[in-house]
Amino acid sequence: MEKWRAADRLLKFSSRFASAVNWNNSCKSKQGKYFYSVATTVHRNPLFSSISPDDISYFKTILGERGVVQDALALDAANTDWMGKYRGSSKLLLQPKNTEEVSQILKYCNSRRLAVVPQGGNTGLVGGSVPVFDEVIINVGLMRNILSFDKVSGVLVCEAGCILENLISFLDDEGFIMPLDLGAKGSCQIGGNVSTNAGGLRLLRYGSLHGSVLGLEAVLANGTVLDMLGTLRKDNTGYDLKHLFIGSEGSLGIVTKVSILTPPKLSSVNIAFLACEDYTSCQKLLLEAKKKLGGILSAFEFLDSDAMSLVSSTTFLGTENHGREVIKDKYGQDFTCIDLRALPLEFWENLEAFLLHSVESGLVANGVLAQDINQASSFWHIREGLPEALMKAGAVYKYDLSLPLEKMYDLVEEMRVQIGPAATVVAYGHLGDGNLHLNISAPAYDDNILAKIEPFVYEWTSKNRGSISAEHGLGLMKAAKIHYSKSPETVQVMASIKKLLDPNGILNPYKVLPSSLFSQN
Amino acid sequence: MEKWRAADRLLKFSSRFASAVNWNNSCKSKQGKYFYSVATTVHRNPLFSSISPDDISYFKTILGERGVVQDALALDAANTDWMGKYRGSSKLLLQPKNTEEVSQILKYCNSRRLAVVPQGGNTGLVGGSVPVFDEVIINVGLMRNILSFDKVSGVLVCEAGCILENLISFLDDEGFIMPLDLGAKGSCQIGGNVSTNAGGLRLLRYGSLHGSVLGLEAVLANGTVLDMLGTLRKDNTGYDLKHLFIGSEGSLGIVTKVSILTPPKLSSVNIAFLACEDYTSCQKLLLEAKKKLGGILSAFEFLDSDAMSLVSSTTFLGTENHGREVIKDKYGQDFTCIDLRALPLEFWENLEAFLLHSVESGLVANGVLAQDINQASSFWHIREGLPEALMKAGAVYKYDLSLPLEKMYDLVEEMRVQIGPAATVVAYGHLGDGNLHLNISAPAYDDNILAKIEPFVYEWTSKNRGSISAEHGLGLMKAAKIHYSKSPETVQVMASIKKLLDPNGILNPYKVLPSSLFSQN
Repeated sequence: MEKWRAADRLLKFSSRFASAVNWNNSCKSKQGKYFYSVATTVHRNPLFSSISPDDISYFKTILGERGVVQDALALDAANTDWMGKYRGSSKLLLQPKNTEEVSQILKYCNSRRLAVVPQGGNTGLVGGSVPVFDEVIINVGLMRNILSFDKVSGVLVCEAGCILENLISFLDDEGFIMPLDLGAKGSCQIGGNVSTNAGGLRLLRYGSLHGSVLGLEAVLANGTVLDMLGTLRKDNTGYDLKHLFIGSEGSLGIVTKVSILTPPKLSSVNIAFLACEDYTSCQKLLLEAKKKLGGILSAFEFLDSDAMSLVSSTTFLGTENHGREVIKDKYGQDFTCIDLRALPLEFWENLEAFLLHSVESGLVANGVLAQDINQASSFWHIREGLPEALMKAGAVYKYDLSLPLEKMYDLVEEMRVQIGPAATVVAYGHLGDGNLHLNISAPAYDDNILAKIEPFVYEWTSKNRGSISAEHGLGLMKAAKIHYSKSPETVQVMASIKKLLDPNGILNPYKVLPSSLFSQN
Repeated sequence: MEKWRAADRLLKFSSRFASAVNWNNSCKSKQGKYFYSVATTVHRNPLFSSISPDDISYFKTILGERGVVQDALALDAANTDWMGKYRGSSKLLLQPKNTEEVSQILKYCNSRRLAVVPQGGNTGLVGGSVPVFDEVIINVGLMRNILSFDKVSGVLVCEAGCILENLISFLDDEGFIMPLDLGAKGSCQIGGNVSTNAGGLRLLRYGSLHGSVLGLEAVLANGTVLDMLGTLRKDNTGYDLKHLFIGSEGSLGIVTKVSILTPPKLSSVNIAFLACEDYTSCQKLLLEAKKKLGGILSAFEFLDSDAMSLVSSTTFLGTENHGREVIKDKYGQDFTCIDLRALPLEFWENLEAFLLHSVESGLVANGVLAQDINQASSFWHIREGLPEALMKAGAVYKYDLSLPLEKMYDLVEEMRVQIGPAATVVAYGHLGDGNLHLNISAPAYDDNILAKIEPFVYEWTSKNRGSISAEHGLGLMKAAKIHYSKSPETVQVMASIKKLLDPNGILNPYKVLPSSLFSQN
């Protein structure tokens, strides 16, 4: 057991280190290598108007010249998503500076039947934040004021355009952290985070935004400003409408202000990288970790042996890969176990006792605990490097699924049988959240391979009451696939709420819900 | 510091002990002493039908003889709320055994325009769970099956009629706890808990039901069954409709099944009872406790010096009042500080270090840490005994408010000025949740006193962006007062959603939203 005992001091990593990685957003290249497997057969809604010179003039009276952007370069950037996978043809980008301007814009667009796309940092992965056709882009990036922060309650109130990293920095000075953290934090905005119900790295510990967002201000399609900007933890006065705007991807209203509960910053961070014999041991270890580490466990990730082989065979990690060296030294190249990592905070002795017990009980076959910040950083990089390793390995079909824990790895194994030797099935993800990132890696994109994956993967997920989008949303990419995760009656109610709040359907059209529900509106 | 040092062993209280108290539900007597200050000027909606013999016959074909209750005694109990404060005149109580029966009942009632009241354990405090007039009572208490429990994810799926205490017992055997606990747990049902977004004792640690409820099944007014019964922590596929049914008090649909994330049971519980010089110190101590005790703090309550005096002057605690003896021995009778208690779990040394530091820094003037289970029990009883002490002291006007922490005690002090010597203002509550229980204790009910309290208390709460109902809901009692906490635009959207999902308004009429919004429907 000396490998645990050797680590006899509490590592004082800053919490910002722990938050500096991105486990989700896999496609950083603009090479368009990401293969979009589903034909997007969406037609422009003929009821929508097109922009006229009068419209431009009107918007200039509201926003001034600078708030009305028609520059080709700026429009190109705003029309194109982060992966270079989705591209619209909007001719107009509006940049309101406050809620009143958002309200005036929407009131006008609604009366003119001009469709709009709400846009924040434009870091989404499902085509939700760019136009499909010529929708007006409303970017709230100029609305970036922090409005208040209460150090006793930890409640932060800010405008929707605040960049997540700026909020993290602000809170760091105050001794607090954001309850969510994403790889895209340098660009993504809190309004977009809320509108997409972003998951990220801290969900296991701090829960989803449905729990931590205390209040919102949102503007409806007709310009009505809904003040739901409470700062209270408890408020049972009527229907809690803010939840409709969390995760509805800007299709019910534009979020303009956010009130969010922020947890106090913690003093230290530790990381363990452990090897289990099989997925069942992983599951059991998660249960034990939840029990024994209680509230101090902040992440519980896993990667399987194919993922580990892949990440070991690529060189992208660079020369500073202390973590990989440690893993290689310990286990050699025939490392074939499913791995996971735990990131407990604060309580070193509890972690040590937990690890000792897990090894003694056989749940953990072997493992390492970061001895210094470089090792810890490298452990993160192993997990973090997976998406990029997959991109470098060739073509990759990517799926972001939530599945019941006991079933999760069955899908991976069935997919291996289904695919055969034509491709490699690589699995990793946020085990603690029940979120599997399933990747099928092949030498090149091939319709024969795709035919073996889809609709199998969606049907399998549906059959096991999983979600076809754990954290990325539906956007344009999966709007027509909602029925794999939601019942027809439920989708009908969603559509009726959409029609109630946005009768002309101008807000982020063609996204989230199947367009067929709104044709001949 | 020997008072902390003396407690040199980890107390192994069962977590069930900690959950066995009721800090919220104040009115246990059936004497009708509770003074309802607001005239309930609600008229029966003339569009609703009355029960006919044909209706009875039809319901018997669905439910059998036993599911159709017309017995006077049973009806009297179902018509009367827990406090004996609200009483309806329903002639029919239906007891469905499954979702399909609920669906058939509602479909029929909707077609016949028969108004209904969904009822669970009938333990609510705002008149939400009993008829106002002759509404049909639908009690889901026979739907009490536990459907599944996953020990890895901690996800429990059960029917709405499961009594909270039974779920707690079931989970205890599995090594888990419910994320909520209430004094009414012996009677209240999980469907009612969800429908009222019940708060309770564990909110500080485990958050609200909007965070821990993973899925629901609910039946709409027209009988449509909405299957939203996901068991996943992450699911970003469309609008998260379940939140509409959490806290809408049965006015949008009847919850029939619940999927809920349950935390692992913790091994130990400790309780400290501390004295601060003033409210500002209380606030600061809360901040420190959140920082230093991180995820292990499960409750942070406070009671002020008037509350402490009251609880010390009454004898209801009985002869086993170790806690009060300890408090009296330590501080004598001139105890005048604001008090609070922290209930940390698991990590004794962290608690000890925190308490030491708090005393050294002057935040805590004095305090005791429970030395054994009897003391701990008595500490709880001091706080728990307050509502009963207030009832025994005479007339009491009770308000359940959420307020920003920094303003919370200002209301108490302003109320004292406002009231003068005619009554005593007693404050206690869930400081960690920002929830104040404001009580005005007088020798007898007096309209002059009431005129000094209302609408002042509601206006003050509104001005400071508080909530006039932190955890009890609006029910019948405060339906017409929603505008004190919600903007007109927001209330309008609530009303439009109500009309969308329940066009005939049959579900729990006269509750939650002002009846004026639905007159001449």
